[in-house]
Amino acid sequence: MPLAMNREVFITAAVTGSGSTQDRSPHVPRSPQQIADSAIDAASAGAAVVHCHVRDPETGVPSRALALYREVTDRIRSADVDVVLNLTAGMGGDIVFGGVESPLPVVEGTDMVGATERMAHVAECLPEICTLDCGTMNFAEADYVMTNTPGMLRAMGQMMTDLGVKPEIEAFDTGHLWFAKQLVAEGILEPNALVQLCMGVPWGAPDDLNTFMAMVNNVPDDWTFSAFGLGRSQMPYVAASVLAGGNVRVGLEDNLMLDRGVLATNAQLVERAHGIIENLGARVIGPEEVRTKLGLTKRAPKG
Amino acid sequence: MPLAMNREVFITAAVTGSGSTQDRSPHVPRSPQQIADSAIDAASAGAAVVHCHVRDPETGVPSRALALYREVTDRIRSADVDVVLNLTAGMGGDIVFGGVESPLPVVEGTDMVGATERMAHVAECLPEICTLDCGTMNFAEADYVMTNTPGMLRAMGQMMTDLGVKPEIEAFDTGHLWFAKQLVAEGILEPNALVQLCMGVPWGAPDDLNTFMAMVNNVPDDWTFSAFGLGRSQMPYVAASVLAGGNVRVGLEDNLMLDRGVLATNAQLVERAHGIIENLGARVIGPEEVRTKLGLTKRAPKG
Amino acid sequence: MPLAMNREVFITAAVTGSGSTQDRSPHVPRSPQQIADSAIDAASAGAAVVHCHVRDPETGVPSRALALYREVTDRIRSADVDVVLNLTAGMGGDIVFGGVESPLPVVEGTDMVGATERMAHVAECLPEICTLDCGTMNFAEADYVMTNTPGMLRAMGQMMTDLGVKPEIEAFDTGHLWFAKQLVAEGILEPNALVQLCMGVPWGAPDDLNTFMAMVNNVPDDWTFSAFGLGRSQMPYVAASVLAGGNVRVGLEDNLMLDRGVLATNAQLVERAHGIIENLGARVIGPEEVRTKLGLTKRAPKG
Amino acid sequence: MPLAMNREVFITAAVTGSGSTQDRSPHVPRSPQQIADSAIDAASAGAAVVHCHVRDPETGVPSRALALYREVTDRIRSADVDVVLNLTAGMGGDIVFGGVESPLPVVEGTDMVGATERMAHVAECLPEICTLDCGTMNFAEADYVMTNTPGMLRAMGQMMTDLGVKPEIEAFDTGHLWFAKQLVAEGILEPNALVQLCMGVPWGAPDDLNTFMAMVNNVPDDWTFSAFGLGRSQMPYVAASVLAGGNVRVGLEDNLMLDRGVLATNAQLVERAHGIIENLGARVIGPEEVRTKLGLTKRAPKG
Ligand SMILES: [Zn+2]
Ligand SMILES: [Zn+2]
Ligand SMILES: [Zn+2]
Ligand SMILES: [Zn+2]
Repeated sequence: MPLAMNREVFITAAVTGSGSTQDRSPHVPRSPQQIADSAIDAASAGAAVVHCHVRDPETGVPSRALALYREVTDRIRSADVDVVLNLTAGMGGDIVFGGVESPLPVVEGTDMVGATERMAHVAECLPEICTLDCGTMNFAEADYVMTNTPGMLRAMGQMMTDLGVKPEIEAFDTGHLWFAKQLVAEGILEPNALVQLCMGVPWGAPDDLNTFMAMVNNVPDDWTFSAFGLGRSQMPYVAASVLAGGNVRVGLEDNLMLDRGVLATNAQLVERAHGIIENLGARVIGPEEVRTKLGLTKRAPKG
Repeated sequence: MPLAMNREVFITAAVTGSGSTQDRSPHVPRSPQQIADSAIDAASAGAAVVHCHVRDPETGVPSRALALYREVTDRIRSADVDVVLNLTAGMGGDIVFGGVESPLPVVEGTDMVGATERMAHVAECLPEICTLDCGTMNFAEADYVMTNTPGMLRAMGQMMTDLGVKPEIEAFDTGHLWFAKQLVAEGILEPNALVQLCMGVPWGAPDDLNTFMAMVNNVPDDWTFSAFGLGRSQMPYVAASVLAGGNVRVGLEDNLMLDRGVLATNAQLVERAHGIIENLGARVIGPEEVRTKLGLTKRAPKG
Repeated sequence: MPLAMNREVFITAAVTGSGSTQDRSPHVPRSPQQIADSAIDAASAGAAVVHCHVRDPETGVPSRALALYREVTDRIRSADVDVVLNLTAGMGGDIVFGGVESPLPVVEGTDMVGATERMAHVAECLPEICTLDCGTMNFAEADYVMTNTPGMLRAMGQMMTDLGVKPEIEAFDTGHLWFAKQLVAEGILEPNALVQLCMGVPWGAPDDLNTFMAMVNNVPDDWTFSAFGLGRSQMPYVAASVLAGGNVRVGLEDNLMLDRGVLATNAQLVERAHGIIENLGARVIGPEEVRTKLGLTKRAPKG
Repeated sequence: MPLAMNREVFITAAVTGSGSTQDRSPHVPRSPQQIADSAIDAASAGAAVVHCHVRDPETGVPSRALALYREVTDRIRSADVDVVLNLTAGMGGDIVFGGVESPLPVVEGTDMVGATERMAHVAECLPEICTLDCGTMNFAEADYVMTNTPGMLRAMGQMMTDLGVKPEIEAFDTGHLWFAKQLVAEGILEPNALVQLCMGVPWGAPDDLNTFMAMVNNVPDDWTFSAFGLGRSQMPYVAASVLAGGNVRVGLEDNLMLDRGVLATNAQLVERAHGIIENLGARVIGPEEVRTKLGLTKRAPKG
């Protein structure tokens, strides 16, 4: 009943994402080397976990190429600084419809592949954590849908469990969290699940505190949660999540700005989050403590 | 700050829906005449609004046939008992994927049509209200997605406004309500919007009271809301919605049972809701009061 | 996460209270016989628990006279209908100040006695349950304070535990519930506590649903709770409490009216609550099930 | 519906309070000069408002001596740094009972005086703001009650309004906020009220976020609110209040520690709050902006 804030907080740095942000900031990393370097810098600044997508090194367009994931993974695992690796498994569920008068057939931009293909890089790289976008929803684009059916989620979730890769459930709305609990109830995910509450992503859950608290109140006691907000809600949600008992995520995937008019690096965003967390009276924990907490096993670099 | 319950409550009877329920209860109406009769019985029992889908008269399979909507509309408008007509506009956004290893191409069961086609029966029948399912989401089925992109919702919403048919926004999760507010902000929907909070529909918002209150707290003051739950949460949500300041929806679309082991008729469900509302100290209002409240104009039967 | 309503609900009838209500309704019982009879009627109508104060048989003014409690207790225990007896222990903590310019000395109406004296009738009658008003607060009267200091609550709570009489914690605001948890933490009350959430009593917690849910969210999982509202919020709170997982209290202590302009009897209020509970799909349980649930031992009538 | 955080935040420094803290930290100011100096330092560090009690200069025991308030007021008004003055009006409502077996007569430590006497220093000093502890409740002490009856609050509130001194309503629980709204409804307080949500003060409202949000949801739209927590919840509540749309209060009245094992000064606590607020992306506003926002008029130093 007293304030149940988290006093041992880990920071995840989401270093690049899949958004069309690569031309809006020079700090959004594109090549595997840039992504790994930015992740390593973020780890040095206090991130215990780095969440990575890959992009075409030239254009910056999001990619699912195995070789790119492999290179990012190896570079991060070979770095001097220790960090938990979290790879996205969110790619391959993209539909773009043909407009309001003829939605089908789907058009360019669509990338809907099977579960095995969506998981190929996870099977290859065996990151300690990979994400599981736990539902289907609209985003800001007029004709786009992020598509993860119940069947797909059961299949991908089971693969993660079988591979020994910890799923980080991405809950973009209250129904996604509900379905995640169903996956645990069905034995597909392990009971001590890890969930990321993704707040204020249009058109998922808005980031007002009533909605956030409704979601937090629905996270089971034996789960671990983190939360993030977008844009100028990124730092406020660092505080909100810690206050509500959770961990935090920052980084260029969700927000490009350090201050009004000042483009950020991943390391700067981590550093600022670090300062907020400590000023709230909590301690920032490192990768080894995260592994202990979540039951993760560090993999050696391929060699 | 004192309990802000609604003391003037309208009941919507959702008489048949699109679910595969027609073989689970003999009371689920199939033909236009059965649907109209069940709606009229519900109105006689106290429903101010009847929400109708149409079905193939023989098989009971959901249909979008104009003639069926026309017949239902005319029968209801010609009845001795007055009632506000609410037609679904939810059909035509169904995708069924080809399974987890080959989601595309989409398979049988898919019914994705353009906005104009989805609205054809609304344009033809001009019901006082039609529904607008305000997002894209998973349902219980493994490979199914209910698909309503932002572009589609803007197009359909604008058509409703242009036709003078009041949209009833169906919010199945917090993000749907958020997008509905966006539609109002964009001028596509009128400011005094009407929203149905659809609670506990897998995999949308769960129906726990914290989630429900987070949604209620996000309904603008000048909107009107209703809420419903499914199955044995139907009657509890009659009470929950009234207590929270809203109106209620019951009917066979959402729940087949009157009591454990007892199949219900629409009229019986309305009657029970009516009793709960009155026992809470509220008054059940009729169709004319609903028209005044929502600014609806009754249309004469075609003739 | 699905609606966690209580499906096995007990009703407490609060049959007379200490309010100045005896001249506002002929149904407010005054004499021990009237109080016992009204309690027994309420039990016959479905109340598993009867919560009793005593009053001067002539004037109806609240009293702490042992003989009156004794007679009420014996009459109820000798009745043909079984019911759990719950006696107030709220008397004896009344201060009336001498007005805003000279609060001290306290004036007529003050009744501040020691813990032993406040508990004398409980020690004498050994009801299965007695109340513990878990804090100090203003009521509607300008110069009155209901006074229960932490020291007094620890002393009275310990006496209840020692006597084997189950305390029903009356929480009139969020801080009272917090202190009750402290009493459990200190070992003064047993872990499986019973709490009554008293909503909308001026100037305690208002009865809006946000405040109610904040309190419900703070009730420990192994506690049992009930809730009530006042006046025309009485029946709404029957529904609210069941929906939120709790039990219900109705009766003339909290509300005199059955309908607008119609004075109620205790039995009528219980009957109406009974109807609401069943219409929500829950079952009303009887005194034996309550004893099992709460670990109560029925005492024989003195004889 | 997006995060409604406050982006223009004022900080109140509560520099000394009435707690028995003067022997627990050398930084708790005692004499008028010490109090004024600490307040001025806090203002220099970014506090727009300073909330002051006075103490006996030798013993540090809380006092109501007019001369002490006068000296504090004049020293602060004569300072080079501008700041809004907020004087407590919380003194003079203290009861200490004679123990659990003989609560009356009240004993040493009791200080229950009339409204005029409680307001004497406010009438004399005419601070821009004074506090109004909006209810009666237990604190941590076994036999103590903070006593502010409805009658007393109406009298003191009216005096504040008549004097042109803005009341800062101290709401220690949900019922206090409810009564404050009643004072506005009765025309005793002005509609654009200012309220301090005092979270986690035993035995008022606990400081969990559900309770906090229930209170925030009950603050009227045209009011201004601030909030604070105690001890190690002080900095977390800086963030919580800003996130929820409010302003912040820090200082030695509520918390003595800067970090574990490090005693704080008022200026250091303000400085840390300032850093948190800016890191959340909000701006700290100064005394002139507070006056504009709240409609305050600065008084000249007596002279
Ligand atoms: Zn990502
Ligand atoms: Zn429908
Ligand atoms: Zn009572
Ligand atoms: Zn103070």
